[in-house]
Amino acid sequence: MRVDLNSDLGESFGAWTMGDDAALLSIITSANVACGFHAGDPMVMAATVAEAKAKGVAIGAHPGFNDLAGFGRRVIRGDSLSDIEAMTAYQIGALQALATRGGHRVGHVKTHGALANMAADDADLARAIARAVKAVDPSLILVAMAGTEQERAAEAVGLKCAHEVFADRAYTPTGRLVSRSQPGAVLHDPEMVAARALAMVQAGAVTSMDGQVIPVGIDTICVHGDSPGAIAMAAAVKAKLAAAGVTIAAFSSWI
Amino acid sequence: MRVDLNSDLGESFGAWTMGDDAALLSIITSANVACGFHAGDPMVMAATVAEAKAKGVAIGAHPGFNDLAGFGRRVIRGDSLSDIEAMTAYQIGALQALATRGGHRVGHVKTHGALANMAADDADLARAIARAVKAVDPSLILVAMAGTEQERAAEAVGLKCAHEVFADRAYTPTGRLVSRSQPGAVLHDPEMVAARALAMVQAGAVTSMDGQVIPVGIDTICVHGDSPGAIAMAAAVKAKLAAAGVTIAAFSSWI
Amino acid sequence: MRVDLNSDLGESFGAWTMGDDAALLSIITSANVACGFHAGDPMVMAATVAEAKAKGVAIGAHPGFNDLAGFGRRVIRGDSLSDIEAMTAYQIGALQALATRGGHRVGHVKTHGALANMAADDADLARAIARAVKAVDPSLILVAMAGTEQERAAEAVGLKCAHEVFADRAYTPTGRLVSRSQPGAVLHDPEMVAARALAMVQAGAVTSMDGQVIPVGIDTICVHGDSPGAIAMAAAVKAKLAAAGVTIAAFSSWI
Amino acid sequence: MRVDLNSDLGESFGAWTMGDDAALLSIITSANVACGFHAGDPMVMAATVAEAKAKGVAIGAHPGFNDLAGFGRRVIRGDSLSDIEAMTAYQIGALQALATRGGHRVGHVKTHGALANMAADDADLARAIARAVKAVDPSLILVAMAGTEQERAAEAVGLKCAHEVFADRAYTPTGRLVSRSQPGAVLHDPEMVAARALAMVQAGAVTSMDGQVIPVGIDTICVHGDSPGAIAMAAAVKAKLAAAGVTIAAFSSWI
Repeated sequence: MRVDLNSDLGESFGAWTMGDDAALLSIITSANVACGFHAGDPMVMAATVAEAKAKGVAIGAHPGFNDLAGFGRRVIRGDSLSDIEAMTAYQIGALQALATRGGHRVGHVKTHGALANMAADDADLARAIARAVKAVDPSLILVAMAGTEQERAAEAVGLKCAHEVFADRAYTPTGRLVSRSQPGAVLHDPEMVAARALAMVQAGAVTSMDGQVIPVGIDTICVHGDSPGAIAMAAAVKAKLAAAGVTIAAFSSWI
Repeated sequence: MRVDLNSDLGESFGAWTMGDDAALLSIITSANVACGFHAGDPMVMAATVAEAKAKGVAIGAHPGFNDLAGFGRRVIRGDSLSDIEAMTAYQIGALQALATRGGHRVGHVKTHGALANMAADDADLARAIARAVKAVDPSLILVAMAGTEQERAAEAVGLKCAHEVFADRAYTPTGRLVSRSQPGAVLHDPEMVAARALAMVQAGAVTSMDGQVIPVGIDTICVHGDSPGAIAMAAAVKAKLAAAGVTIAAFSSWI
Repeated sequence: MRVDLNSDLGESFGAWTMGDDAALLSIITSANVACGFHAGDPMVMAATVAEAKAKGVAIGAHPGFNDLAGFGRRVIRGDSLSDIEAMTAYQIGALQALATRGGHRVGHVKTHGALANMAADDADLARAIARAVKAVDPSLILVAMAGTEQERAAEAVGLKCAHEVFADRAYTPTGRLVSRSQPGAVLHDPEMVAARALAMVQAGAVTSMDGQVIPVGIDTICVHGDSPGAIAMAAAVKAKLAAAGVTIAAFSSWI
Repeated sequence: MRVDLNSDLGESFGAWTMGDDAALLSIITSANVACGFHAGDPMVMAATVAEAKAKGVAIGAHPGFNDLAGFGRRVIRGDSLSDIEAMTAYQIGALQALATRGGHRVGHVKTHGALANMAADDADLARAIARAVKAVDPSLILVAMAGTEQERAAEAVGLKCAHEVFADRAYTPTGRLVSRSQPGAVLHDPEMVAARALAMVQAGAVTSMDGQVIPVGIDTICVHGDSPGAIAMAAAVKAKLAAAGVTIAAFSSWI
């Protein structure tokens, strides 16, 4: 058994710091690096590339809407599909150049925030993103949840896909995340989340709020680093997996 | 005898249009494409790449300060050299991805506006830019005026350099451009400018305001497209050169 | 009979020009000035204030989403109502200061683009905008189409409302604008549009695509200035109204 | 004896937090609120206004260059004086509207970062800023260090001026701040800084690094809130002053 731990980072901007990237990079195996549209800037990206390389962490681009003011969490409608393709390619390329300069390599792409949420359900949008990823580098791996339009789009355009699960989020009976606005949508107890992560990996399935076991591909577990509690939870997840003999490595080693 | 004609384009942004890129792309052989920091956006860049490819025009990145409000013309001081490197790499990479997606290739880099003016005289800044260019792709050609720090930086880091002249600008006795604020700094008569362009190419030299002939490398002549008059001037320069038997081609074919 | 002619202007940004504001300011009686979020910048705003004052044109704030890249035309969801209030107040205040500095006065507010479209149908959003306007200056007049939530919100919070019609747009049987994506939604013939403007003012009503006459309040007709044809159409509307004895004046004189 | 304590706040932006404004607002008597150009956004400004009002703290506008990426600390050259005037007026007006909406009132203006540093020495720039302040509201008080061009500009255009000193910064023999790049330029010991603040107020003078006593007007002492240590230092300054019988109040009560 093996699994990757991924997290979004490089989300500082200019004089503003966000998250404890150094702590997180000592835990995770794949980093999704913000590309300057919803967070991050060239200097933050360069520093993140360097730190990830130093710690042997794989990196991917984390493109989002060009919405610094809203941190890419606001739904923005009105861009054409070719606009979305161009925005996606732009962000990947920007990180690629900084990765090349830093002696590292962009190996995957994971969409951010509202763009990710929209693409989970919108086949045309998901396909546009996948086309952009493939056009820039067909060897890039797209990170997506099983059952989403992004997973289907990766298959449709011929991209490899890393399947992602969330150990700290409740699932619906159809295998989607319960909305954060619902009670019980987000789990906060590190031990429970760690146990859940291990159970997911061992079963190759997620369990919905109403107890249904839903088999899903699991290549990577998303963890967070935006608070001391989040770092502790990420560490607990890793420790639990390791103690059970699960190999923790970047998904690029088996996908 | 052969020379390239280059111009800055892709300078529209969102709903705002600038320049007549279509007309210009029928004249020039190398296009310097704005990368979204001082002008341009991913959609404009994608469209510019497509049009340049369709017309067989070589493309390069045209990085500037992140200053949309000032169009990259404002001098900005306070970035470290490594900040400048990161900004430069980011912009090149963004265009590279859009070029790859569009079946084209970024072959050169020419700095924009205040960044270019500052780098002409500041050896450390010029070196930082050259390092960034080389780190992203050592085969990239840096466009620079003979005698500037950017030319020296290209040589120092081991980048190929395309030497640029301006047919519509007056030169000082030291081979630098006369400041636009001086009378006579900018020439407006298309026939005179065209004749000057040909004379420069034939002599391998520029003539200063006070009549001194200054031998300089000449690979490319900068032309403009931001007004009907500018397009007519660019066309006049091209016609004059062609009539005299000068081969007009992208400098990438001999550098 | 009297009516106001309003138009959106001050939509240039930095080095980019949009519209022929000088021509338009010789035609219209009320100008809606972009406030730097979707278009415009402090310098453009200052110049617009000065030109409007010189030509005796009333000015209002034209707040939109903070979306330069999308010109405020993209629907953005995710801001709370108090966020919307703060954004609206910010933009009005910025223009007020430039108006005070220029010896002019902000007399009205008209929302822009996607914010306006959303507020036409969303009572909570419309109410938030109206609250912000009133909080900044309760004497401000809100420009809104009859029958929209913005009209109702103005009444609910106790703001005066200027009722707007569009002479160059087709209306649905419920008195709303036909979507631009429908055939026949936008009228292009200046004489037809001018005749329609006069008929609207004389009847105090708009006529829907299927011929129904819908009585509506009419204080102001929206005209455009983003092309030579638009300017000609605005001039034709004004000439037609004047020839029929309609007084053309800023709505602030009767509201 | 009486003195004001001022601090820069409202410097969060979107999802990014900066400083502990709540703690600072329990210490200071005048708050300089960022206006969205170098930091802050409409929502942060609205929240800052509300919190300042709740704690009885006077507020002023803190305009800077439109440079989020550089936090207003980068020197930007190329704007005309009328550009600077427009930018300054825009930012003041934006805060005024949010203050009016929040039942508070903008009483002063203090420039930020590079704009402040440049205006300390550049008479034309200082005059442009003072003109903008006066044009927007002639009752506004300009905060400036004694001996700077901003102080002279306030007098020249007829604005009231609040004289500012820094208890945690070393002074040159000419009464200017020692550059942060010099050793000893910034003092870090809270007790020493507090004692220095009291000595300044009692003497009506600052003491330079080489021991000269330079009489200066002192209306307000600048304190900081961007770290736990800074908050503790601000509290120590206040306690020391209060214990010595110095009245601590907003400068608007005597200027």
